[in-house]
Amino acid sequence: MGRAGLKMNMKTTFREVAGCIVAPRGFRAAGVFCDIKRLGTGKGSDKGKKRDLAILYSEVPAAVAGMFTTNQVCAAPVKVCVERRRGGWAQAVVVNSGNANACTGNQGMADAREMVTLTEQALGLEPGLALVGSTGRIGVAMPMDNVRAGIIEAAAMLGDAPENADHAAEAIMTSDTRAKQVSIEIRLGGRKVRIGGMCKGAGMIQPGMSATGKRPAATPLHATMLCFVTTDAAIDPATLQGMLEEAVAQSFNRITVDGDMSTNDTVLVLANGMAGNSIEALQTAGSAEAKLFQAALNHVCLELAKMIVRDGEGVSKFVTVRVEGAKSFKDADAAARAVANSPLVKTSWHGGDPNWGRIIDALGYSPAKVVEEKVDIGYSAPGSSRILWSLNKGQPTEATFRDLCAAVAPAAFDLHIRLNLGGSSAVMYAADLTEEYVEFNKGDVSDPTSLGG
Amino acid sequence: MGRAGLKMNMKTTFREVAGCIVAPRGFRAAGVFCDIKRLGTGKGSDKGKKRDLAILYSEVPAAVAGMFTTNQVCAAPVKVCVERRRGGWAQAVVVNSGNANACTGNQGMADAREMVTLTEQALGLEPGLALVGSTGRIGVAMPMDNVRAGIIEAAAMLGDAPENADHAAEAIMTSDTRAKQVSIEIRLGGRKVRIGGMCKGAGMIQPGMSATGKRPAATPLHATMLCFVTTDAAIDPATLQGMLEEAVAQSFNRITVDGDMSTNDTVLVLANGMAGNSIEALQTAGSAEAKLFQAALNHVCLELAKMIVRDGEGVSKFVTVRVEGAKSFKDADAAARAVANSPLVKTSWHGGDPNWGRIIDALGYSPAKVVEEKVDIGYSAPGSSRILWSLNKGQPTEATFRDLCAAVAPAAFDLHIRLNLGGSSAVMYAADLTEEYVEFNKGDVSDPTSLGG
Repeated sequence: MGRAGLKMNMKTTFREVAGCIVAPRGFRAAGVFCDIKRLGTGKGSDKGKKRDLAILYSEVPAAVAGMFTTNQVCAAPVKVCVERRRGGWAQAVVVNSGNANACTGNQGMADAREMVTLTEQALGLEPGLALVGSTGRIGVAMPMDNVRAGIIEAAAMLGDAPENADHAAEAIMTSDTRAKQVSIEIRLGGRKVRIGGMCKGAGMIQPGMSATGKRPAATPLHATMLCFVTTDAAIDPATLQGMLEEAVAQSFNRITVDGDMSTNDTVLVLANGMAGNSIEALQTAGSAEAKLFQAALNHVCLELAKMIVRDGEGVSKFVTVRVEGAKSFKDADAAARAVANSPLVKTSWHGGDPNWGRIIDALGYSPAKVVEEKVDIGYSAPGSSRILWSLNKGQPTEATFRDLCAAVAPAAFDLHIRLNLGGSSAVMYAADLTEEYVEFNKGDVSDPTSLGG
Repeated sequence: MGRAGLKMNMKTTFREVAGCIVAPRGFRAAGVFCDIKRLGTGKGSDKGKKRDLAILYSEVPAAVAGMFTTNQVCAAPVKVCVERRRGGWAQAVVVNSGNANACTGNQGMADAREMVTLTEQALGLEPGLALVGSTGRIGVAMPMDNVRAGIIEAAAMLGDAPENADHAAEAIMTSDTRAKQVSIEIRLGGRKVRIGGMCKGAGMIQPGMSATGKRPAATPLHATMLCFVTTDAAIDPATLQGMLEEAVAQSFNRITVDGDMSTNDTVLVLANGMAGNSIEALQTAGSAEAKLFQAALNHVCLELAKMIVRDGEGVSKFVTVRVEGAKSFKDADAAARAVANSPLVKTSWHGGDPNWGRIIDALGYSPAKVVEEKVDIGYSAPGSSRILWSLNKGQPTEATFRDLCAAVAPAAFDLHIRLNLGGSSAVMYAADLTEEYVEFNKGDVSDPTSLGG
């Protein structure tokens, strides 16, 4: 309830503005078609030409923060970003879809490095100020002739109109059915500050990102999802990194479509300082400005993260799994993930079946401490505190089957689980498992280029 | 290769005999219809009456061993068996399908206890010598009137003809499409000893059983599957329990259909001693008799376990995932389970898509230590050492896409993964993920009785 209330406050507090990643001052973007996906030729020709390379550019060097997949098999562009992020500053990001540049060995690393170098040259940047992201098929060499031509073209087409942001957001899509973008405006010490973001991701989605790509001991181990956030806030790289870690912990690291963590998950934030707010105020932990900026960044990341789940491959239901009363956060997280990733629970959501037996089964085999006789399970509308309980202390309630079916019939609902063993809670934003997911992912072996990573 | 060789030797070593669970001397069985599933009425009427209660009986008290789900939410019949197994001796097992008697509170415990008591009374046994198993829907009270009538009827119909075993094997089925049975004969010190078994299970399948229902620290955390094994071997309960633990560790605890561990998983072995072999020889670790009996028990459990995977809900492919070269067994096990349970890997198997990118992605996010540049991935026919490698030290081999597709086209194949980091290995018997699995499990909310646990 508190959390739901916070979310709703945030929704009303933040003023949405147009422009998405080019909404903040000084940012420009472009998205072009350079045939990396091999669409527009052969089998895929009926799908038309889809943009597949984007450049995001800031007029001045920006403080940069990043979070990266903790998958041990990690793509070349991720390795390049992990290394460059440490420098603290960036001025451009080049992103392609259609090829993940993962499991591509030394050639892959050379290709990723060439992509950033070409971007720097095309934009006249100092060496070291470009970053790179890739998503698509695993294990296939980057078609560098296409990529080179794409970088030249995109650099020439940069603009700060909303359609430029739209083109970039389209260019990073893979199995996404729609572009995912948001932009908001806040006031920090009298200055208007904007935050914009775009992301992609629909399958291989259960990110577990860290700042270094290494797994912190206590971090949940768990798309390709890519997210790029821009802001004109003035903030130092270390403060921005700390804030991004909190924002990702409550957004992208709390979503799952299929439980598969990708080799390429990346979130980058560029803050170019052109709003002219006080850097010192944001550096002061607990200041009103720091709290507000953190809340705004959390909001942008969470809205984008939810868009990924809603547009997940074959997804027909968006379910927020809220576990409360766990002995520890680790337990709450493990319980929520077990439920959110159980094929039997997910198929029951697809069927509109309020099957608490499968939910308590998943809780029981999770690593979390669970006592059957203490478990409550219920449903509500998204963010609502009016919960229809189906299970109370391990026993079915008086709720009718018809009413429970009605509670899980909508395209979005909240699942409430109370373990009643302690004070810790965790949320997962999850999806159902559908025939369409299977159909989509079984691939088309008559067309090797369709075999996405 | 060694393992495959062993399996093939075992296949040729053990002589199959007729009779299944009534093949060993002194065992009788029955399976009857008592309408627990509520089939034969209303919506399910076109399916006909299906047997749903079985009794297995030994003429004399038998040494008993058992392994049980480590799910913290554990059904009443499991609790009764865990308790009674400690006594070391049993003479009958009553099993029903259609209702799991899980999450049924005190009434469920009373019902499970009544089932064993009624069985003892119907068979004229000493109190404490009957065991109980249940499988089916979770969270619904047992229809005890039906169960009582069923026990009386089954007790009256016990017999030792193969068809009695068939009836029992049919009565324990839920979503299984066929009965699962086996029986073999070996010679221990000149005496003919037989082992028979039956099992059920198709969904909610990734058992992780222990002798106490508690999770040993190092045990993999992971249907309802039920398995009942009979033998006329003379063996003491403690030795039998030790041998069963080894047999389950290499069979039922190494299978997965959907990664969901049930509340009811149970394996029970009854050894009634009527073969008259030497108990002492079996007690002597390392003796030829002990080795042979262990191998025979392993064989029976593994054959039954594989039947569960092949008949898994919607399953069209049976894939043996063989991980070698891990740093530890824990790592090998974690790597094999990550691959065997990845929705993206499983859908690619369904599609006949030799997608190594998804496999290495799953390896990379598993808790096992994995180094991309060391990983080999290949395919062979089941048990064959002729492996077609698709990935060598993290790089694609010269194998053609056509040849790789041919390797994964059969209904059964082995997936070979070499981590090349150490000397430990693990096998998982796994299945694909199909539209049929989703279709079956999304349930039919117009019919509450169809909502299986």
